[in-house]
Amino acid sequence: MVWNRLIESVPNVSEGRNKDVVEAIAQAAAGRGRKVIDSSMDADHNRSVITIVGEPEGLLEGLVSLAAKATELIDLNFHRGEHPRMGAVDVIPFIPVRGVTMADCVSLSKSVGRQIAEELNIPVYLYEQSATRQNRRNLAEIRKGEFEGFKEKIMQAEWEPDFGEAMVHPSAGVVAVGAREYLIAYNIELASSDLSVAKDIARAVRYSSGGLRYVKALGLALKDRGIVQVSMNLTNFKKTPILRVYDIVKLEAARRGVEVTGSEIVGTVPRAALYDVARMSLQVRGFSHDLILEERIEDALGENC
Amino acid sequence: MVWNRLIESVPNVSEGRNKDVVEAIAQAAAGRGRKVIDSSMDADHNRSVITIVGEPEGLLEGLVSLAAKATELIDLNFHRGEHPRMGAVDVIPFIPVRGVTMADCVSLSKSVGRQIAEELNIPVYLYEQSATRQNRRNLAEIRKGEFEGFKEKIMQAEWEPDFGEAMVHPSAGVVAVGAREYLIAYNIELASSDLSVAKDIARAVRYSSGGLRYVKALGLALKDRGIVQVSMNLTNFKKTPILRVYDIVKLEAARRGVEVTGSEIVGTVPRAALYDVARMSLQVRGFSHDLILEERIEDALGENC
Repeated sequence: MVWNRLIESVPNVSEGRNKDVVEAIAQAAAGRGRKVIDSSMDADHNRSVITIVGEPEGLLEGLVSLAAKATELIDLNFHRGEHPRMGAVDVIPFIPVRGVTMADCVSLSKSVGRQIAEELNIPVYLYEQSATRQNRRNLAEIRKGEFEGFKEKIMQAEWEPDFGEAMVHPSAGVVAVGAREYLIAYNIELASSDLSVAKDIARAVRYSSGGLRYVKALGLALKDRGIVQVSMNLTNFKKTPILRVYDIVKLEAARRGVEVTGSEIVGTVPRAALYDVARMSLQVRGFSHDLILEERIEDALGENC
Repeated sequence: MVWNRLIESVPNVSEGRNKDVVEAIAQAAAGRGRKVIDSSMDADHNRSVITIVGEPEGLLEGLVSLAAKATELIDLNFHRGEHPRMGAVDVIPFIPVRGVTMADCVSLSKSVGRQIAEELNIPVYLYEQSATRQNRRNLAEIRKGEFEGFKEKIMQAEWEPDFGEAMVHPSAGVVAVGAREYLIAYNIELASSDLSVAKDIARAVRYSSGGLRYVKALGLALKDRGIVQVSMNLTNFKKTPILRVYDIVKLEAARRGVEVTGSEIVGTVPRAALYDVARMSLQVRGFSHDLILEERIEDALGENC
């Protein structure tokens, strides 16, 4: 199957210990026009991330079914885990992969949100690119207070849900739905065992303390290897390209007499982010996807599919 | 159509002026298991390059048909053009794209060569990765003497063809068939109008005068822009990666007080070559195609196709 319009969704559900429950929830998302490609459980967080790709129409159906099954099988009144949460399905992000715009993902997120509110009686908050108010862009802001605190929070005019009544679902809580850019988890390792060096560099590069707009960063010690790393989330590689992040970390490290020994991509990285690195490194003028052999071939063969 | 085993072939035919003839030859290659995706004529060279992609079985049939049609429509006794040539179909290269090895391409080239010799009575030389003798690796060595000189050359024991009788086809000459790596045409522009700087750097970076093994390079003047460039063919990006070529050109330029202002990819570049640039620039440890979002998705969806 080749889908020309491809969106990824990575719903987070508040169950990370009972494999049968997670599998049943992931299974509920299956069907025409989408495919569940991964499901990973975290017992400490008591939370799972399910990865689904598909066309907008298929995903709409799949995500609503998934939310229905999670509502049936998870009761947040009995949920304990390290990760903060406010819903049985806690958050449903949509990420453009190919042949779709961010606006398409925003539109899909609103359809999914509306249907979840109507069919399951769960209050829905639109976040990130789909947010209707500035203080709803950041998921952490919405989630503050968690399931237990939401009974009061939802009564405040400021926290009236985007879809559904201002009444927390008794067992499934509330859910955030939204469109966002692909998030790249990227770590850079330093030839040093001094944690303060990694923390200083993290502070220099991250947005919250004056650094690059779409970078979150922490300094961490890798104790078994005796080195430190700058551990980052890049939340918009189109506006804050990976190479720029790498260059700044390297320069800041050099300023402290420390070398970069390597870097690590955790999870996956979109092709376009790597193309950007190549284009910038080589100073290629007039770079476009037409310059790439496989893109040309796929375009030429696409009509046969 | 998604082909899991994909090879590219770019046969060069000795006709670059008569559009009907070139189209008829390209058309002859069409059929099940391959697709003609481009055909570009050069009137000065009186030569055309046809781009065909497909699975090994489809390409075998397509290239033999193409050679038959070129033999029918082109008479080298009347061919004049700037580019040296020895055959109506002058050369048939095969390049691995995905799901195939170089050995698969060598094997395909031999099947195509054998069939052309048997069905069309054209002597065939295997070149590059398919070569059976050291002095047949380089296409220019085989082509020396061209169509006109081949009647004598072919009588030498050293130039006995790999397939077919030692007798030049009266109108279609001889043909070279072989497997090779993808060739990247890559130019680097310098902030200088001094042609000797570009020539010096070309000499430093190219194999023939002591440089990198898989680099051919020339210094050229871009008169309308008033700058010079190092114009290169990278004949094996796996062993001589683009970034290393770029870095050396940049260092050699700096040594002469000249800046690199940009670079240009002519034609296309394989994805893997860009991934290499990104991996090297970012010092990514444990890089593999599994780290790339779209590769993961395509793997996951592939089974539905």
